Amino acid sequence: MGEGVKSSMPAVTAMAHPNLALVKYWGQRDTVRQLPLNDSISVNLSGATTTTTVQFDVALEKDEFELDGARPSAAAVARVSAHMQRIRALAGIPTYARVQSRNSFPAGIGIASSASGFAALTLAGTRAAGLALDAKALSSLARLGSGSACRSIPDGFAEWLAGTGEDSYAVQLAPPEHWDLAIVTVYFDPQPKAISSLEGHRAAPSSPFFEARLRQLGETLRTVRWAVLERDFSTLGMAVEREALSLHVIAMSSRVAGQPHLSGIYYWQPQTLALMHAVQRWRAEGLAVAFTLDAGPAVHLLVEAENRGALLEAVGGVLPALGGQVLVSAPGMGARVVDEEKGKFNAESRVF
Amino acid sequence: MGEGVKSSMPAVTAMAHPNLALVKYWGQRDTVRQLPLNDSISVNLSGATTTTTVQFDVALEKDEFELDGARPSAAAVARVSAHMQRIRALAGIPTYARVQSRNSFPAGIGIASSASGFAALTLAGTRAAGLALDAKALSSLARLGSGSACRSIPDGFAEWLAGTGEDSYAVQLAPPEHWDLAIVTVYFDPQPKAISSLEGHRAAPSSPFFEARLRQLGETLRTVRWAVLERDFSTLGMAVEREALSLHVIAMSSRVAGQPHLSGIYYWQPQTLALMHAVQRWRAEGLAVAFTLDAGPAVHLLVEAENRGALLEAVGGVLPALGGQVLVSAPGMGARVVDEEKGKFNAESRVF
Repeated sequence: MGEGVKSSMPAVTAMAHPNLALVKYWGQRDTVRQLPLNDSISVNLSGATTTTTVQFDVALEKDEFELDGARPSAAAVARVSAHMQRIRALAGIPTYARVQSRNSFPAGIGIASSASGFAALTLAGTRAAGLALDAKALSSLARLGSGSACRSIPDGFAEWLAGTGEDSYAVQLAPPEHWDLAIVTVYFDPQPKAISSLEGHRAAPSSPFFEARLRQLGETLRTVRWAVLERDFSTLGMAVEREALSLHVIAMSSRVAGQPHLSGIYYWQPQTLALMHAVQRWRAEGLAVAFTLDAGPAVHLLVEAENRGALLEAVGGVLPALGGQVLVSAPGMGARVVDEEKGKFNAESRVF
Repeated sequence: MGEGVKSSMPAVTAMAHPNLALVKYWGQRDTVRQLPLNDSISVNLSGATTTTTVQFDVALEKDEFELDGARPSAAAVARVSAHMQRIRALAGIPTYARVQSRNSFPAGIGIASSASGFAALTLAGTRAAGLALDAKALSSLARLGSGSACRSIPDGFAEWLAGTGEDSYAVQLAPPEHWDLAIVTVYFDPQPKAISSLEGHRAAPSSPFFEARLRQLGETLRTVRWAVLERDFSTLGMAVEREALSLHVIAMSSRVAGQPHLSGIYYWQPQTLALMHAVQRWRAEGLAVAFTLDAGPAVHLLVEAENRGALLEAVGGVLPALGGQVLVSAPGMGARVVDEEKGKFNAESRVF
């Protein structure tokens, strides 16, 4: 396109869900290219959505970014603009864009809006620039915005292949309808993280347990991949619980540069631990439930859909004392273009 | 002695303190002989005491054991009687004994009464049997009753040398007066442990991180030994916190035989984690404090004595919300024979 870019390009809106890692991404091979040290497996969370509209406009003198109706931090604007610059380079256009994004869920609760955000931005931005990237290229590009965003591109269950070179992207492991899981996310009042996930990734190799984690991951990946494909809940549950613990083992035993008063990175809050204990108790009482945790205090509870009611009842029994809130998801779709006028999917624009 | 044993042998009373591991004992090379897989370092807790009186009596037809004025469980009686049998074998006498033991601290709060108990029993029992074992032999014998009891024999700071053969005992690293530390133990309502320390030791090698822990321990031991000898609190604090975390890393990632609903051994309670967070905060605010944790929810807070008041004030600020209780210790003496009539140490009977 280059010089031939139209002065008025269409606005494109895309939606994406954050994803929940069943096998975690923790530790980077390359921080600039967001290349992970290990493969990971995730499921999209249908209960949380980012919706992003991108329109290139020759009248703009810089990218404009609005998040949830407000102006985000300069750092957030710069990060979005850097991603738009990647899209401009791919499309061969110089035009700046207007980006409007809305999250259906609060920030800072332990559900990564950067994953859904950069997945939606990548799809809306490339389409608005006239590009029609395939799934692999979209996933790889989304990764450059925020590593785990690559897993929010495919529908349902995804596996992010770390790769060995410069490329690294997620592929679909199973579609959302493959396994009717319920994911109940219990989150607490947003608290500023003392240590960001970025710092956590950087510090990970300083843990005396990091190499053991990487060695263990081959077996964990095989087990979780098999359990998803075979819909074996008890195998999945034990494996994801131990894998979540493994991430926190690394975080808690990491040495954080410039934080001499911290002996490690403690993402758990007392409520996190209370729920971890509750899960062991509920399981002993016969409820087939498992938890997983990301780099934050929120607890994600997994059950097969037939046990959703029983789980919500159990959670309701402990929640008043813990003061948390609940978000309920099923395995979600991947990034897709939506027709905002009709408020529904634009089937012609679905990429998968 | 053998057949020549006197019909009326004197009662001997000994006192010992539980000890707090700065470098932990977790994982056994030999469960019968209580041989550990690694060296460990501890300090005796002056604020908690077990006092034990032993008298051999030819009129008895079996050992009698009274704990805190009551009859303990059959398992506890059998464990004490097995230890008396070791002492009888050493002394060459057939006589049964009356054993009365009192703990100054509650059971099940995360302070191991088995350590102080078997240290006091070993000293009182051998003396009552007419033996005069040296420090090494006492420590080695106490170990057979309960592994970490060997560390409650020497005064002050002790290092348990795992050894490579059948023998394994603790030696003094520094006397109590070497370093004026305050140890504030915050404990919570006694709860029955879902998983005993014994099962924890057995399960430890199943953790994917156990080999990494053993590899790390050489450096940890060197650091903690050096920090104790040089009285370098900030080095000690960071090292013991990371070491405590390491024990719980292993526990939380262990596979427990016969407990298929448990993904790991979670000894922490929500209050434990609240205090761990508080310690990081207090340290950031300038208080030189560190925590350590044993296989239970209690939190042991370490400061130099000049900061004891500041620590107790800080603890007092969070304790009402947590509902815990506090025990304050300094580095304590080792096992010693006491003259109960006078209610003070019998200097002639001190073994070290």
